[in-house]
Amino acid sequence: MKKSVLFIFISLISFGAFAQDNTFNVMPVPQSVKPNAQKCRVKKTFTIGVQGNPGQRVYDEASRMLRRLDNRVGLFFKQGHITGKDNDANSTMLLQVARPAELRMHEDESYQLIVNDKQIIIKSETDFGAIRGMETLLQMLSVDESGYYFPGVDVNDFPRFPWRGLLLDVCLHWMPMDVVKRTLDGMAAVKMNVFHFHFSEDQAFRVESKVFPKLTELGAEGNFYTQEEVKEIIRYASQRGIRVVPEIDVPGHATAMIKAYPELASIPREYELQRYYGVFDPSLDVTKEYTYEFLDKLFGEMSELFPDEYFHIGGDENTGKDWKNSPSIQAYMKKNNIKNTNDLHTEFNKRLLPILTKYGKKVMGWDEILQPGVPKDIIIQSWRGGQPYYESLKKGYTSLLSSGYYIDLIQPTDYHYLVDPAPADAKLTDEQRKLILGGEPTMWTEHTTVETVDSRIWPRTAAIAERLWSDQNVKDVDNMYRRLDIISLRLEEVGSTHIKNKGMLMRRLCNSEDTRALEVLVNVIEPLKVYQRNAGDTMYTVFSPYTKIADVAIPDQKVARDFRKMVSAYVKSNEQKTEKEIINYLLLWKDNHLKFLELIKKSPVLQEAEILSENLSVIASIGLEAVQYINSKKTPPLNWKNNSYASLKKSKQQGGRCDLQVVSAIKELVDSVK
Amino acid sequence: MKKSVLFIFISLISFGAFAQDNTFNVMPVPQSVKPNAQKCRVKKTFTIGVQGNPGQRVYDEASRMLRRLDNRVGLFFKQGHITGKDNDANSTMLLQVARPAELRMHEDESYQLIVNDKQIIIKSETDFGAIRGMETLLQMLSVDESGYYFPGVDVNDFPRFPWRGLLLDVCLHWMPMDVVKRTLDGMAAVKMNVFHFHFSEDQAFRVESKVFPKLTELGAEGNFYTQEEVKEIIRYASQRGIRVVPEIDVPGHATAMIKAYPELASIPREYELQRYYGVFDPSLDVTKEYTYEFLDKLFGEMSELFPDEYFHIGGDENTGKDWKNSPSIQAYMKKNNIKNTNDLHTEFNKRLLPILTKYGKKVMGWDEILQPGVPKDIIIQSWRGGQPYYESLKKGYTSLLSSGYYIDLIQPTDYHYLVDPAPADAKLTDEQRKLILGGEPTMWTEHTTVETVDSRIWPRTAAIAERLWSDQNVKDVDNMYRRLDIISLRLEEVGSTHIKNKGMLMRRLCNSEDTRALEVLVNVIEPLKVYQRNAGDTMYTVFSPYTKIADVAIPDQKVARDFRKMVSAYVKSNEQKTEKEIINYLLLWKDNHLKFLELIKKSPVLQEAEILSENLSVIASIGLEAVQYINSKKTPPLNWKNNSYASLKKSKQQGGRCDLQVVSAIKELVDSVK
Repeated sequence: MKKSVLFIFISLISFGAFAQDNTFNVMPVPQSVKPNAQKCRVKKTFTIGVQGNPGQRVYDEASRMLRRLDNRVGLFFKQGHITGKDNDANSTMLLQVARPAELRMHEDESYQLIVNDKQIIIKSETDFGAIRGMETLLQMLSVDESGYYFPGVDVNDFPRFPWRGLLLDVCLHWMPMDVVKRTLDGMAAVKMNVFHFHFSEDQAFRVESKVFPKLTELGAEGNFYTQEEVKEIIRYASQRGIRVVPEIDVPGHATAMIKAYPELASIPREYELQRYYGVFDPSLDVTKEYTYEFLDKLFGEMSELFPDEYFHIGGDENTGKDWKNSPSIQAYMKKNNIKNTNDLHTEFNKRLLPILTKYGKKVMGWDEILQPGVPKDIIIQSWRGGQPYYESLKKGYTSLLSSGYYIDLIQPTDYHYLVDPAPADAKLTDEQRKLILGGEPTMWTEHTTVETVDSRIWPRTAAIAERLWSDQNVKDVDNMYRRLDIISLRLEEVGSTHIKNKGMLMRRLCNSEDTRALEVLVNVIEPLKVYQRNAGDTMYTVFSPYTKIADVAIPDQKVARDFRKMVSAYVKSNEQKTEKEIINYLLLWKDNHLKFLELIKKSPVLQEAEILSENLSVIASIGLEAVQYINSKKTPPLNWKNNSYASLKKSKQQGGRCDLQVVSAIKELVDSVK
Repeated sequence: MKKSVLFIFISLISFGAFAQDNTFNVMPVPQSVKPNAQKCRVKKTFTIGVQGNPGQRVYDEASRMLRRLDNRVGLFFKQGHITGKDNDANSTMLLQVARPAELRMHEDESYQLIVNDKQIIIKSETDFGAIRGMETLLQMLSVDESGYYFPGVDVNDFPRFPWRGLLLDVCLHWMPMDVVKRTLDGMAAVKMNVFHFHFSEDQAFRVESKVFPKLTELGAEGNFYTQEEVKEIIRYASQRGIRVVPEIDVPGHATAMIKAYPELASIPREYELQRYYGVFDPSLDVTKEYTYEFLDKLFGEMSELFPDEYFHIGGDENTGKDWKNSPSIQAYMKKNNIKNTNDLHTEFNKRLLPILTKYGKKVMGWDEILQPGVPKDIIIQSWRGGQPYYESLKKGYTSLLSSGYYIDLIQPTDYHYLVDPAPADAKLTDEQRKLILGGEPTMWTEHTTVETVDSRIWPRTAAIAERLWSDQNVKDVDNMYRRLDIISLRLEEVGSTHIKNKGMLMRRLCNSEDTRALEVLVNVIEPLKVYQRNAGDTMYTVFSPYTKIADVAIPDQKVARDFRKMVSAYVKSNEQKTEKEIINYLLLWKDNHLKFLELIKKSPVLQEAEILSENLSVIASIGLEAVQYINSKKTPPLNWKNNSYASLKKSKQQGGRCDLQVVSAIKELVDSVK
């Protein structure tokens, strides 16, 4: 134990010792950074001034920036809220802003940031540019023997794509206002600019309608946003340069709407909110005039509530089954010569378009709405990616990529990071490339609650934000991971609970402040990826306890990642120092199992993870043997390798809907034994 | 380092090993607990049934209880939201409730809880009783070799006092909705029943008035509760059996009101929101008719918004200076033969009473409103305690104790715990005792932000809640502390951030995930107590960075407390095992200083605490020497004691507005050297 604890300490110490490069730890990396040798010291006298014609927002954001900076350096700056009176050209930080931005696509977000000995100047066309520039600056705060300073630079920066969104599903699990707000704060910190508000689903409808009050009375079980709260979300987002795009998912994924207004149903039956997850048959009856009258009124009301020019109508995963089973719908299709349910869906979309156009909206929808005959002025949000995505571009549809950015699927950061909405080698014309708006990670919340949502969004989404903002050639994975660790702390500063909730979840699981045996295990496991966690969509419901080991486990565990890297280096170099670190980890894991068994006695909820702990111990022993053989160059007994491979294979099994993340590394050690 | 780290591990292990007593870890201790030898097992088949005529609230709370239980045991209970259909007499847990409670003082909160092999039954007159009973049950969850169970008991329980409040000041620092909600959740977990909503101050007015919109437009800097949000707070509180009592503080502490409506001022001047803390001169002009017309309308509006029968009018800390400096007020006093400003204040109160009576309210106020001539049907909230408190009782005023419960003053839990609103030895008649309503800890937020408020409220307030609920004879401090550590985890489960924000604040302070050197220090310091932190009320403003070492430091540090206890035991017994533990701590502290110096280099914000770290190292060395002398029975050199005392005295100095909490213990070691 002693050794392993010591080791953890060493590895933590090294955390702070990363060398800087010319990114200055900024994420997303700016388009151009020219360092000079100067330093702008941060002193108690630090002030902010604003010049130009920036509008109110920038004053509020400058005030917030001032407090965030003071919260880090603790110098008790004298300025309170920045106002129009704060326009001194000699302010420590001077913002020069030509005009307030409009909340619209393609708005100017560029800025120039100049730091020298005397002053910091941020010049921008719009306040959004200034707001982006302040985030860059805050990330650049540095320390030397004389204290805090901002390094001298000339930064010229602008986004690669105009649409850098994040979808938050607030239906499958309820996400209260504070989650929405801190998500917006995190987005702003990494310069994202579209909040895709997914608030209608089979499980709930979560925005108050005054025209159709039953939508939330019967469809939200008390958990919804009032219109006043929606306005507050929009205001809060706008303040940070973020647009809010609403989605009402029709005609499928609409059980909650149908429960509230059964007249909308394709098949008359007793409707309840869905408790399980997946794809369900209920669908709006798109052959009834009532449905269009209803949607006209609802979209009218929501179009007024949400001022953004885009409106998302969903359109995904409509099974068509209820349509096939409805005699009246079948009769309608026959009468109107509609061949199949896909065509019926297209007819529906065609009727929705003029409704939304009437309310001044442009329409977006998921892949499936792209059927022959759909007009060109819609945006296709691609969740399937690949061929359908390129086809939509080739057909001339403006497109947004979400495929590859499904952050709910617990994939590693580098996987998402390297997905490019406009790959250099994609066979697209310049015209087609111009149709690519950007991308949008999707936070579907089947298996995510208010307690875990931050660890599913952050820090991985920061890397996606970089993909969408920075130059296409910024794709050094090691450099990304180095900066991600730092940005992770910055995201915590703006309220994200992705780090601190780990301890909280572990304390509940252990029923104690002593969570060490659990943490050793948690640090080398991840929840099952893609759709494996919920086999057959029948294990979990909206009421399930999402407080288990799979919920404290996070995607892309750093300890496991570092270990894999260390082993890869070691099998090449056989370096002593690395070997020692590897042995320390292996000893820690080997010895942890007995402690974990003790923990289970006090916390039976951890029983399901016993197999993981046991397998970890077994393969750690194998790893130790392997290192010994490598080190001593001795030949192992005849069956050692085969037995080891068998154990390693066995150790891939899941426990508590998680699996071990160091199996491949230990296999690499075994492979290296001659 | 190795040793010390090992030691921390040992001490954590011992945390989970506390013996149970017949309190079953419940806080507040119930009035009567009779254990039987049975156990009600918690299985996947656990269900809740409700019988009687309980109203909607209990179903929602039972659903919440079910989820909280499942979140701990992770068994995937099948029941979703509990409804009227769930009335099976064979449910695992059966609630039998005669009627819904009314939200009023003296409402019945009693319950009987029976647990046996087969079933759990909670019987109560009102749903509030059932809600209290469910909290008791949740706290009793236990584990043995066969898994989770509830121990067999017959609990009969009821509160000692009808008013078990908590004042939350949302003015000096803004506290958003989620803070209010999680505070209410914490209160419910320890059976508190009044939320004292202190929303008007010199620094801000934080509840929307539709009659006087400028109150928040000019008086809240954007941070206020809309009326819709206030209704949500009241609904949320009611759901948990908690009343909401509003306070509008007049005629002093009203700068924000005066800034919004300068017509209210005693002295015409340019009014700004106060940025510093303390007692200020601005006061309403209580000689103008406008003021009464204004308050009539405002109180009328607020009386409707807040349905509770009580309305708090503040009345504290009115300096009278502006009244003395106003010629018109002086003229008025002369004309009406009012001798001094105290009498003028009483006249003001007398005119407010009929206004509030008209709106159906009973009036409360702070100590100062008790002047000769004030009617008997007001409630005096005593912040000064002592003689004035007893006098108000003797004069026949219903009274509520807050003195001794000022949790903002960073005093230890046992200090608050032993303050009794009705001490057995107080010279009061039975009639006078009946006037004692209970008590109310006050969370003033000068030095408390959204990030630190929970660690100022919890877990200490749980001990005060016990004082106000449990029998007067429940006052074993050791037992209280033992249970407090467990309740602390329960409070985290309902959302309190008092544990997890420690790590967050430390990571920001260290600008790193490695916070070990800081944590060693933080675990033995506390913020300066009572009003020492803010010398002369001039150091801090509402804009100050409350992110420093004094903010991560908490009241009543457990490590320091345990160390003091250990030393006290050791100097009596000289026990070897204890000596070893003491030495481990002393070595840890002695060796930490070099690491802390390294940390300061990376995080200059920690500079202010260098002196603490250095002094800790110095006195740890002294402690080690002392233990050696004690152990070896050798006599130290002539000046050793005097030099040690000099160093110990020096080590009491503050650093970063904190001081060391182990000085007395090390002095005790030095004292024991012969």
